[in-house]
Parts: sequence; C-alpha cells; structure tokens
Amino acid sequence: MNYFRPNIAAMAGYVPGFQPKELDIIKLNTNENPYPPSPHVLNVLRNLDLERLRRYPDPAGTEFRQAAGRVNDIPADHIMCTNGGDELLSIAVRSFCDKTRPLAYPTPTYSLYPVLAQLDEVPVIEIPFGQDYSLPKELFNTPAALTIVCNPNAPSGSLINVGDLASLAASLKSVLLIDEAYVDFSPCTCIDLVRQFDNVIILRSMSKGYSLAGLRFGYAIAQPSLIEGMWKVKDSYNTDAIAIAAASAAISDQDYVKANVEKVIAQRKVLTEALIALGFKVPPSNANFVLAEFNGPTAQHIYDQLVAKHIFVRYFKLPGLENKLRITVGTPDQNARFLSALKEILAR
Amino acid sequence: MNYFRPNIAAMAGYVPGFQPKELDIIKLNTNENPYPPSPHVLNVLRNLDLERLRRYPDPAGTEFRQAAGRVNDIPADHIMCTNGGDELLSIAVRSFCDKTRPLAYPTPTYSLYPVLAQLDEVPVIEIPFGQDYSLPKELFNTPAALTIVCNPNAPSGSLINVGDLASLAASLKSVLLIDEAYVDFSPCTCIDLVRQFDNVIILRSMSKGYSLAGLRFGYAIAQPSLIEGMWKVKDSYNTDAIAIAAASAAISDQDYVKANVEKVIAQRKVLTEALIALGFKVPPSNANFVLAEFNGPTAQHIYDQLVAKHIFVRYFKLPGLENKLRITVGTPDQNARFLSALKEILAR
Repeated sequence: MNYFRPNIAAMAGYVPGFQPKELDIIKLNTNENPYPPSPHVLNVLRNLDLERLRRYPDPAGTEFRQAAGRVNDIPADHIMCTNGGDELLSIAVRSFCDKTRPLAYPTPTYSLYPVLAQLDEVPVIEIPFGQDYSLPKELFNTPAALTIVCNPNAPSGSLINVGDLASLAASLKSVLLIDEAYVDFSPCTCIDLVRQFDNVIILRSMSKGYSLAGLRFGYAIAQPSLIEGMWKVKDSYNTDAIAIAAASAAISDQDYVKANVEKVIAQRKVLTEALIALGFKVPPSNANFVLAEFNGPTAQHIYDQLVAKHIFVRYFKLPGLENKLRITVGTPDQNARFLSALKEILAR
Repeated sequence: MNYFRPNIAAMAGYVPGFQPKELDIIKLNTNENPYPPSPHVLNVLRNLDLERLRRYPDPAGTEFRQAAGRVNDIPADHIMCTNGGDELLSIAVRSFCDKTRPLAYPTPTYSLYPVLAQLDEVPVIEIPFGQDYSLPKELFNTPAALTIVCNPNAPSGSLINVGDLASLAASLKSVLLIDEAYVDFSPCTCIDLVRQFDNVIILRSMSKGYSLAGLRFGYAIAQPSLIEGMWKVKDSYNTDAIAIAAASAAISDQDYVKANVEKVIAQRKVLTEALIALGFKVPPSNANFVLAEFNGPTAQHIYDQLVAKHIFVRYFKLPGLENKLRITVGTPDQNARFLSALKEILAR
C-alpha cells in the first residue's frame, strides 16, 4: 500500500554524486577540496569536552555566528547556521514557496533545486543560460516567490557580476538567494547586496573552500527580517555541538584557507590549459572545478574509461551537458594522473 | 515587506527548552542523560582521520545502519539515519501530510508535533489523553495520514502497551509513527510491530539513553517500502561523518549504556518517592524524567524560585500542564540538591 503524498510517491529523488568508500582512488567528482581542513579543527576534536555532547547544542550556534560575522564584517544577527548549504536551500524553498508561489533559476545549475521544488509541489521556472552564461533577462520578470542564482555557477564555473545581481535584487518583489557555495575560489562576492537589499540571502558552505564536506555546515547571510522568518522553519537543533565548534575554528583560520585556495586556483589554471591543449573547450572557471566539452569520443565513454582506471569525475545526463564532464581540481599529483589517463584514453 | 508564505509569517515557531551556556548549574530541564557518553565516542574523536571531514559523508550512514541493525536484530535496510529524532519527525510530516492529509496525536505530548504541522499547513487532530494516559479510542477513527504516539510519552512519562499499539496499527489505513525517544528507560519497545505492519515507523534517538544530545543523531526503523519513500525527502547528506562514526561507537557499547540507564532508573525511583513524600502527585514514569503535580504554590512560582537557585526544570504553559513541572532525573547529587532546594522553597 502506498501511504505517501502522491508527489513524493511519483518523484525519483535527488541522486548525489557517487561517494566511494575506498580512500585510494582519485576522486574528482564532487568538488571536495583536495587539502585537509585547518589543523585547528583537529585541535577541537582532540580537546572536545564530552559535556558538550551530553547536552543539547546551542540552537543559535552563537560561536559560529560570531566567528562568521567577524570574517565577513557583518553583525552576528545577519547569520543563520545550517546543516550544510543544502539545508538552507530546503529551508528557503519551504519558507517562501508553495503550490502557488514558484521557484525560478537559470539552467544548467545545481540539480538539487528542482528536487526541492518537487518535494513541496512548487512550480519551477527554468530559464536557460545563453552561451556566455550571463544573467538571463527573463529572470527579471517571473512570478517567482524565490529566485536562486548559483554564483559562481555549477557546473559551468561561470560568474555573474555583482552589478547585474544588484539590478535583479532591485527589480524583484520577492526573494533572491545567491548560492555562493563556491565563492572562496571566486574573485568576488555579493555579500554587499545584503546590506543594500532586504530581499537578498547569501548561501555559504564550509564544504569547498574550508575542506569540511564531511562536517555538513553552511550558513545564510541576510537581513534579520529574513533570518528570523527562516529560523521558524529550521529544526531547533539543526547543527551539532562538534560541528559548531569545528566550523568556528575553521572559519577563524583565514590564513590557512587562503593558502589552500591559492593552490587550487593555480592548479585550476594548469588543468584548464592542459585540457585546452588536448583540444577540449573549457570556459574560464571561478570555482574549484572545470567543465570540459568533448569532441570525438562521448563524455559518457570517457567517464567509463576513467572509472576503469579508478578516477572519478562527474557526468550529468542533463540537457546542455551531454558531452561535457565536470572535473574537480585536485592536487598537482591527482591532476597529472587524471591528465595522463585521459591522454591514454584519447590515444586508443 | 513580508516575503514569507502567509502560514510561516503568522506562526510563532517552536521554542526549545532553555540551553544555558554556563556549565556550573543544575540542568534538569531538557531530559539530557546526566552521565557522559560511552568512552568509545571519545576514541572516535581522538582518532578521526581528517580525510573523513574533507570528503562528503556516506549518504546512507552505512556504518550506523549496520551497528543499529545488529543491536536491534533487524536488517540494515530497515533503518534510516536522521539529524536527531526531530529531523525524522519533520521528514515524516513532509512525506505523508499536506493540507488535505491531517496529522493526529494524543495530548499533552511533545510540543514540536503541532509546529511541524503548521509549517506545512497540515490540519491537526488532537485527542486528549484520559486521566490514566491510556490510548484514546478516538485515534482509531481519524482521517489522519500520519498518527504519532510518543511512547513513553513526554511529558507524562506514561507508557501504552504493545498490544494496544498493535491494534491501532492494524486498524489504521495510514502511517503510525511511534516516537520512542525515551525507550531506553522503558520496560518495553514496539519494534516488533515493524516486522508485522508495513505502516509502522519507530523513532529512536541517541540523545537520551546514549547521552548524545549534542551530536544530533536519531534513526527510523520501518519496512523498506517506508524507508525508501522517506529517503527521497531527507537531505542527501543529512548526517555528518563525525556523527555517523560517534553514534556507531555509542550504540555498539551496549554494556555502557545499560549501566547508565540502570543508574537513572534507580534515581527515578528515589526522586519519585521523595516528591510523593513531599505531597506531590507523581505518576509512575517510564522515561528519564518525572512529572510532578503541585498543590499549594503554583508551578510557575516554584520554577522561578528554582531558577534563582540556578536549578533549571521544565515548565510548560499548556492545557493540562499548568500546575505541573517536568524534572529530568539527574545524578544522585543533582537530585539531592534539587530536593533540598525544593524543600526550602516550600518551607517559606
């Protein structure tokens, strides 16, 4: 017997990138940082008072709000901690959207957005990006209650400038969420828009720049009126005591994260140039991955051949992405081994 | 400008029990275990490979599913990990209920249930318990898509027997969720109903019996048809790598948890008898708290006087609870200090 709501029963569910359990593979498929998190995180784990585990955590995650406030030069009451950036996306959809309040976003982009809409029977308005991945004009005139722009965008790595997003925020009568999961690898952020507009939410993640994908920690930056409303939708104790302490330590160690980010950006250049030299089309990336367009053998074929060599990249069976692979920037060694495997596959 | 869905804008939001940051108080207000978690948890934290934090966690939490499967003698595919038991409640409401698919539960009970219903504009059917806290007959004939029975119930500590809940499961054409957050302190569990009925979900929590409220870890036990559907509603990476490892270590250390639970049960008896000797009405509790009914000074007055002495218990301004206080069972020392403070207050 089917006990579920019809929309839940009918939907397929989100399929996350493959997470192999073996540690001895080259894993360039889900945009993890190739370097470990700040050693301060290890200190937190080594010295954690068990009393913090026995008791409920701080529902506000005050320690993190204050640390993130200092780093971003914004008051702590403009910040809300979430169990990964994904939880913020879920909270935002449930806060602003329903059957009669649509969700809009440009495509291709993060494939979780339509899944969250399906869960709540929210109509989606998908506006395809043009060839240059600039902000589609149609986004200025939708009936959406929530518009999400992933910036830098995944999986294209492209970046929309702050001025264009300011114009969008000014023209909308509803909420604009700018998904900055990859902002640490980007030349600019839209955080200033939070100061100017009461309808802008910035999403941040500790998974990419801070090497903490395993910890599940993200946060919202927005004016208190938006934070307070979304607060009612989040679980009271949505982030745990260890995660709050570890994420606070990581975000406070800016020197460490900046050094890692610089290494990733340098390798992004190496990877991009090598792929272009092999004949692929690779648009400039502002994130910690590149999107390579293949001519000749299909992306699916190359993907399968790489898997056979224990190298994992990401292939999406989605419109506009059929002949492309998204490759996370790894360490110099991982990137070299990926490129060498790719050359072998192409030489056959 | 209000950008929120009208039901979100109108609602008050759940108010969690007060979580003071000071560690030098007597905290008997949110049913935490007074003893620390298993030392195996500390081993996990001390020896965690940072690689587990850099990478995304296992979306299935396989390590925990297998450990919980062994402990409960049930296959791992009958288990789903959640970010606290609260997340399972949220997932269940979103899986089965909507504007036309109501939620039913007996009252008084866990005050989060109606808040979750409000978030999704779900009609609620509240059936008051009788004086003896037995299963209300009206629950057998509601149009609810989801019925929740907290067993042992909070804040009464009362227990409905397995046979009565089996009858309810058999008569319902919809889902019955049995919230067993406090089952570790109870003489019986309804887990066998999962084997007999395809519409039963058991909720478990690591917060109470396992002393891990700060970790946020709970799980569902149900037949795979229910688990698979709810899987689509949960965030892919809803539990983090540290929490999966720590919760797996804790649940595998059954000797430790049983010893702690015995100590709590022994103190529950001490506390109950002392309160009865002071003239209060205290129904037998099957959980790690007692509900004391006060005659004479109001519960609110006693609560305030206790706070002045840095002793925190729980007072609910809810129908049927106006003159009652819920007191978490603490260590022998904490309970003695609470009783001594209470005697002082009454003597004035």
